[in-house]
Amino acid sequence: MIIVIKPHTPRAQIDEVIAEVQKLGYDPRPIFGTEQTVVAAIGDERTHHTLESLNALPQVETVIRVQKRYQLVSRESHPADSIIDVDGVPVGGPHFGLMAGPCSVESESQLMQTAHAVKAAGATILRGGAFKPRTSPYEFQGLGSEGLRLLSLAKRETGLKIITELLSEVHVDEVAEHSDILQIGARNAQNFQLLIAAARTGKPILLKRGISERIDEWLLAAEYIMAHGNPNVFLCERGIRTFETATRNTLDLGAVAIAKKESHLPVIVDPSQGCGRADLVRQMCKGAVAVGADGLLIEVHPNPAEALSDGQQQVSLEGFAQLVKELQPFLQATGHST
Amino acid sequence: MIIVIKPHTPRAQIDEVIAEVQKLGYDPRPIFGTEQTVVAAIGDERTHHTLESLNALPQVETVIRVQKRYQLVSRESHPADSIIDVDGVPVGGPHFGLMAGPCSVESESQLMQTAHAVKAAGATILRGGAFKPRTSPYEFQGLGSEGLRLLSLAKRETGLKIITELLSEVHVDEVAEHSDILQIGARNAQNFQLLIAAARTGKPILLKRGISERIDEWLLAAEYIMAHGNPNVFLCERGIRTFETATRNTLDLGAVAIAKKESHLPVIVDPSQGCGRADLVRQMCKGAVAVGADGLLIEVHPNPAEALSDGQQQVSLEGFAQLVKELQPFLQATGHST
Amino acid sequence: MIIVIKPHTPRAQIDEVIAEVQKLGYDPRPIFGTEQTVVAAIGDERTHHTLESLNALPQVETVIRVQKRYQLVSRESHPADSIIDVDGVPVGGPHFGLMAGPCSVESESQLMQTAHAVKAAGATILRGGAFKPRTSPYEFQGLGSEGLRLLSLAKRETGLKIITELLSEVHVDEVAEHSDILQIGARNAQNFQLLIAAARTGKPILLKRGISERIDEWLLAAEYIMAHGNPNVFLCERGIRTFETATRNTLDLGAVAIAKKESHLPVIVDPSQGCGRADLVRQMCKGAVAVGADGLLIEVHPNPAEALSDGQQQVSLEGFAQLVKELQPFLQATGHST
Amino acid sequence: MIIVIKPHTPRAQIDEVIAEVQKLGYDPRPIFGTEQTVVAAIGDERTHHTLESLNALPQVETVIRVQKRYQLVSRESHPADSIIDVDGVPVGGPHFGLMAGPCSVESESQLMQTAHAVKAAGATILRGGAFKPRTSPYEFQGLGSEGLRLLSLAKRETGLKIITELLSEVHVDEVAEHSDILQIGARNAQNFQLLIAAARTGKPILLKRGISERIDEWLLAAEYIMAHGNPNVFLCERGIRTFETATRNTLDLGAVAIAKKESHLPVIVDPSQGCGRADLVRQMCKGAVAVGADGLLIEVHPNPAEALSDGQQQVSLEGFAQLVKELQPFLQATGHST
Repeated sequence: MIIVIKPHTPRAQIDEVIAEVQKLGYDPRPIFGTEQTVVAAIGDERTHHTLESLNALPQVETVIRVQKRYQLVSRESHPADSIIDVDGVPVGGPHFGLMAGPCSVESESQLMQTAHAVKAAGATILRGGAFKPRTSPYEFQGLGSEGLRLLSLAKRETGLKIITELLSEVHVDEVAEHSDILQIGARNAQNFQLLIAAARTGKPILLKRGISERIDEWLLAAEYIMAHGNPNVFLCERGIRTFETATRNTLDLGAVAIAKKESHLPVIVDPSQGCGRADLVRQMCKGAVAVGADGLLIEVHPNPAEALSDGQQQVSLEGFAQLVKELQPFLQATGHST
Repeated sequence: MIIVIKPHTPRAQIDEVIAEVQKLGYDPRPIFGTEQTVVAAIGDERTHHTLESLNALPQVETVIRVQKRYQLVSRESHPADSIIDVDGVPVGGPHFGLMAGPCSVESESQLMQTAHAVKAAGATILRGGAFKPRTSPYEFQGLGSEGLRLLSLAKRETGLKIITELLSEVHVDEVAEHSDILQIGARNAQNFQLLIAAARTGKPILLKRGISERIDEWLLAAEYIMAHGNPNVFLCERGIRTFETATRNTLDLGAVAIAKKESHLPVIVDPSQGCGRADLVRQMCKGAVAVGADGLLIEVHPNPAEALSDGQQQVSLEGFAQLVKELQPFLQATGHST
Repeated sequence: MIIVIKPHTPRAQIDEVIAEVQKLGYDPRPIFGTEQTVVAAIGDERTHHTLESLNALPQVETVIRVQKRYQLVSRESHPADSIIDVDGVPVGGPHFGLMAGPCSVESESQLMQTAHAVKAAGATILRGGAFKPRTSPYEFQGLGSEGLRLLSLAKRETGLKIITELLSEVHVDEVAEHSDILQIGARNAQNFQLLIAAARTGKPILLKRGISERIDEWLLAAEYIMAHGNPNVFLCERGIRTFETATRNTLDLGAVAIAKKESHLPVIVDPSQGCGRADLVRQMCKGAVAVGADGLLIEVHPNPAEALSDGQQQVSLEGFAQLVKELQPFLQATGHST
Repeated sequence: MIIVIKPHTPRAQIDEVIAEVQKLGYDPRPIFGTEQTVVAAIGDERTHHTLESLNALPQVETVIRVQKRYQLVSRESHPADSIIDVDGVPVGGPHFGLMAGPCSVESESQLMQTAHAVKAAGATILRGGAFKPRTSPYEFQGLGSEGLRLLSLAKRETGLKIITELLSEVHVDEVAEHSDILQIGARNAQNFQLLIAAARTGKPILLKRGISERIDEWLLAAEYIMAHGNPNVFLCERGIRTFETATRNTLDLGAVAIAKKESHLPVIVDPSQGCGRADLVRQMCKGAVAVGADGLLIEVHPNPAEALSDGQQQVSLEGFAQLVKELQPFLQATGHST
């Protein structure tokens, strides 16, 4: 770490900082500049007391971290792209993961109709929310266990793999039993206890980026999962909250490019949540593929206008089939098989 | 709700929207303007299917919600200020709540020294984290159960009431046993399962605003708690994430003023997290009182430079005593007793 | 406009609002709902007194605009894609505009070397800053008039068209004389006097989106230019300011998709400013093409490490040539010629 | 500056960085850590080539600035609070500056009625927009020169000093003739040519913070004015753009506290623009005083519901008188005279 001392600090107070650095287990190396002094503190920042507390000293202007805080998720620790096995379907590297289905599981007919349609269009993984986190307590909260049962039924009928959201430590076993990927939603992106509980199932986990999570924080949340023994993590960009109101969220495709550089984990893009507008999904899917995404998570509904949740961002069955067709040249240009 | 139809939409497609509104249980009232048509949909938006799904129709430009989604937390449903009984200490209305203590409980001596000091300075409630949510898995995660035990000890020794964070459904009973207020942190601000579990304990709950939660979402999270039978909710403003980097968060004192207008619940301000800089705490406390806060939650540590978490934002014991002294004229000007 | 009245407002106060709406020139249509009343105000919002001032009445909860405020720039007023003639080079529709060159013009050799290289790689328009807006008064402010002279020289030598930034009303004639496109930077995105002065030259104008400008505000700024008689406007997305710090700005490719829907004007993407990181430019260019951009504005420098401004976001001459090559399949997939 | 080298970089490539640092005029001091190497570059960052361009080298992870970029505006260069003479009225230090008046000058009667009322209530400076920057070209753009004439008339009649906005270099002389403080609006916060032109008049300048300007950028914009010979600068916090939509902007009172620490310049708060809601102005004024503001800029209108601009954020004449009364204990608590 680098400790920047305020200008015009007397030597005795600089020495105080140096002594504190040493006391906290680092090797201090002061550098006396023309106007300011900085103290480089040598030592592994991941295993020692953080030096950020030195900001509490009045003569310290700022403390700057040099080392990145994530290890297991980093590209350095694992230079090749990770490929994750989703109950027999590989996703990552050359294998593009096409995940689609309704926002919420609403009924057997709605789910089955959607499952058959997305399979026919080319999807290999079926999404569908059984437990739904909703902003208001008065909104539809999902079918719960019955929704999970329907997802298993859809898997048996179509062979599609299943991804569904986990939003409580209490549900871990039940959700893990009925799904091939556990989805952690944006609201739980830093619910570390839930991440740890999910990690312990050994199932692949799709970790959505929090609504205003910095990229390093997102990678550190993935690090929680890997540090608890589960290397099967998908990073999922799903839009961040900004000042813009024309879209529900701002899909941050730059974050996809950075995540691919920094980490070996596959990156999935959710353009439905990402924009909150069905009319933009087609173009944002193309953009996601072009910047290097390893997969897409797309909301599809047989009749979006009557959907029980987020109708405005779900595409129709026909819309999805058309979209997959239009994606082909982009997938070819990026060297993907689907 | 108001459904805005796109300009130049033929009558037949407008009728389609009207029919859909009716089908979803509302009474549609179209208004044909000079350039555009809007359809007002009469019906209670809190008990019916949301009409936002109508955005899925191509002729619909936008759907605008008229009614507020929260009820129990609203000032309309309860015009007087709520006063919450914290194990005998009233907070709200004229009763200012002064809560202070270390970011994390680190040891018996650290906690006891702090507890005695903040009590002497005028605090009535002791804060201290036992279970700590940390961005990195390699950072100090709190003393856990041992921390809770020390908080109970501090209560017995000093008579201070206890507030500590709850971050897992699995810990609910244990944390409730050792604390007088359950704190829900910003990362769990929309972890609705945790809110429901906390609500059921009947204990007062301090609900922090999420790092990028809109005010209506914050109130709806409080509505979850009240809708599950627990009216003892403190709203806590603790800074939002913005583009500014000079502070860790941007303390949004305007949100305090709005929360006081919209809701009867007491509003607490956390200036330590709110700015992330100890050197701003004194001024932000004054500002918080001036805009109408009902209490403060302040991080205090005997030796911030060596704190195991967030040293940069904790004030010293002397700093806290001085701060409380300087607050007096502001508390008087706002009609508060402490 | 829709005026939403607060719940439980007595009829007399509702009538007061109705009277005020009438007084301000609109036809009021009240709708009495189950809990709340709304008043639809019929009349053209673009030619009448805004009703937003009615928010000043205590019984008004909110005033909602229905009509969009832009006309000339809207897709409705001009359904076909606009194609802009840049001194003989068409940009828009099927014609992709590839604009490249250094952040700042630094010397004749730097500019000429870059101009020849970007031309060889396929660019048709040369960028280069002569007057530079810099955050600090102590930073390099550009070569000014000498920079303009060098740009004209480069045009004569290479045949490339010229785009350069205009940042003062005082420079309008001089900059217009030496450039084929006048660039309005993000800091001047709502400097309406400058927009009007630029519009009057009749030259094509590339209007960057402000650093935190909503899409409708950006379109309204373009409307200023068109309303002052100049239809030759390029919209340029160059990244917005968000909480994320891994990139200088967050390139908002969703805004490109929306701008293409809402407006007939060509949309150019600036990935250099957009991310502020040269190592992301290649991927973001592909993403920009995929979502529907009509052109790119890319910073290229013979030796980025020694650039006098923004070296970290400029790509090398070789990097640019490679980038253009890699873009080809994406341009083909989107039906573009270059 | 500190140049952080990527982990596992071979020595030869580190030496390349060291050589480049030297070439650019700095004295390089490498520090070899356990995992990474950093190079401290000694030299004045304000007078040398910026080293941020070194980010262009592939082995460089990041370049960190140590020194602050502003000088003249800094508290270090001028420890005492600056007091600015506004045509005989001192503002700053113990002298609180109360500035009030309509958003736009609309007519002689509107302005005179307001001027007399705000004077009676205690204001010493009259605000009023003559040239108005408006988001849409179809909105009221101000009375222009006629508005300036009315402001001068109001000054003669009431003795109040005048503040009005300058938004074009072309208007500098005319606006300076009719005003005692030149206001630079948020949209022109980084229109450096306008700042320089305004500086040259020698008149006091009130510099609003840009809508998403970081505090250091705001101070650097003030540095432009001081570096061009004009020390009479008021910093004005007027709300920043965030994700929150309950208010037009988020008033950042923490920025006031920081600006007072970092700079000797007086800081004024504009709660009208800051929240965009008249119903919050009273509380935000109290908060502003409490955190240390040196003055307030408040929009006041005789009939806000019919105002030609921003009616929703203007307080009535009676509201203003009441507000000034309620502010007194807060002004006393902060040691101000008015």
